[in-house]
Amino acid sequence: MSKDAPLYAQVERSLVARLGVSLHPGDRLPTEDELIAEFGVSRITVRRAIQNLAARDLVVTRRGRGTFVTSPSFRQPLTALTGFVEDMDAHGLPARARVVSIDEVVAPPEARTALELPLGAMATRIQRVRLAVGRPVSFDDTYLPVDLGRRVAQDDLENEQIFTLLESRHGTPLVEAAYALRASTADAVLADALEVAEGSAIFRVERTSYTLGQRPVDYEVLHYRGDAITFTTRLPRARTPGRGQ
Amino acid sequence: MSKDAPLYAQVERSLVARLGVSLHPGDRLPTEDELIAEFGVSRITVRRAIQNLAARDLVVTRRGRGTFVTSPSFRQPLTALTGFVEDMDAHGLPARARVVSIDEVVAPPEARTALELPLGAMATRIQRVRLAVGRPVSFDDTYLPVDLGRRVAQDDLENEQIFTLLESRHGTPLVEAAYALRASTADAVLADALEVAEGSAIFRVERTSYTLGQRPVDYEVLHYRGDAITFTTRLPRARTPGRGQ
Repeated sequence: MSKDAPLYAQVERSLVARLGVSLHPGDRLPTEDELIAEFGVSRITVRRAIQNLAARDLVVTRRGRGTFVTSPSFRQPLTALTGFVEDMDAHGLPARARVVSIDEVVAPPEARTALELPLGAMATRIQRVRLAVGRPVSFDDTYLPVDLGRRVAQDDLENEQIFTLLESRHGTPLVEAAYALRASTADAVLADALEVAEGSAIFRVERTSYTLGQRPVDYEVLHYRGDAITFTTRLPRARTPGRGQ
Repeated sequence: MSKDAPLYAQVERSLVARLGVSLHPGDRLPTEDELIAEFGVSRITVRRAIQNLAARDLVVTRRGRGTFVTSPSFRQPLTALTGFVEDMDAHGLPARARVVSIDEVVAPPEARTALELPLGAMATRIQRVRLAVGRPVSFDDTYLPVDLGRRVAQDDLENEQIFTLLESRHGTPLVEAAYALRASTADAVLADALEVAEGSAIFRVERTSYTLGQRPVDYEVLHYRGDAITFTTRLPRARTPGRGQ
């Protein structure tokens, strides 16, 4: 955003940059008067900035009590294969990852099947916590064929998404992905990583991404905080012969 | 299925008809010898019938211990708007519903918004437990505009699905639906209805179905047992300008 952006947009941008840094979910935003003084702008400008943040579900205003930072919660259309950074970009939110571990392992059965690897083949396993505005949203378990995985393991996995790395650095364009969606609950490891209570709802996405020639190159299990994500789609009515239209 | 169907298919069909009636999840199937005696068929025929049931995930064979009835668990493609009876038909499984309640209520905010009703408008609320092979799979909360709802309330809601009733009896063809998918956990009411422990994973589907002219006619919240359902889809890669292909 340039300095020529409208003042309210500059204030909005400035506040978003503090989310997850100095402003955390549940924190109260500075008051209108404080923001007017800090930014040297009018009340109308401050109000518009806050209204925009509220429209983006980043803050909520409680009458007579102030404006508070919300926990990240997104509506994510199930229309195209996108990575976490792209999804957060679409919401105008800063996204990062915390790398938990990178290992070479004998591919477990689900990963072996998904990646069409022979019995006993090695895979690179990358575990990351995905952060939006500094808050954990998803715990991702990624398996790559080891030749590709060794290269990706050298990349900046805190700030880049694997899809972009595969496509732009490792000559592996992605074509499509198969998804399997389930509801689950958090065990101790997920609860700790996602900062939720054990037993909390988890939206589990198993995803196998394919490059050219229907070759699977990336098998992931994404564990979203149940309170952070709603997937949306629109489906046409199936014509069902024999069921009387 | 006619009497001319292959013998193994007749045996298979006969066993499926017992699921949820005399054979429940966890129960052991009769032994091969018992089935041979009962149906007067060869061992090869009995084995093929059981293999088919296992391929449909209706039973599981444990070496040296016998063959056991599984809990219903389905992979449901997210490709078209279908009702529960249609989905179970596609799996070759008997589906029914237990009607919990039918009421006329002031439409709650979510239903009012989804059905585009004025403030204070009445809606027909239908609560049902959906059963596959006699076992609860989903607890459905359905809201219909009251003029339509009063008519549907007279129908056979234990054996017919609302979609089919709307289309074939009430002149309301369905065109498409908007879905919102979330992970959640079972409260006491859901736990009781779905025969799971409180706090178990629930796959929550909020669905608004539209008839001609983009008119919403059916708002539902489906609460699937998390262990019973996996939704699947395939998505093409989004081309994202500015992210270097």
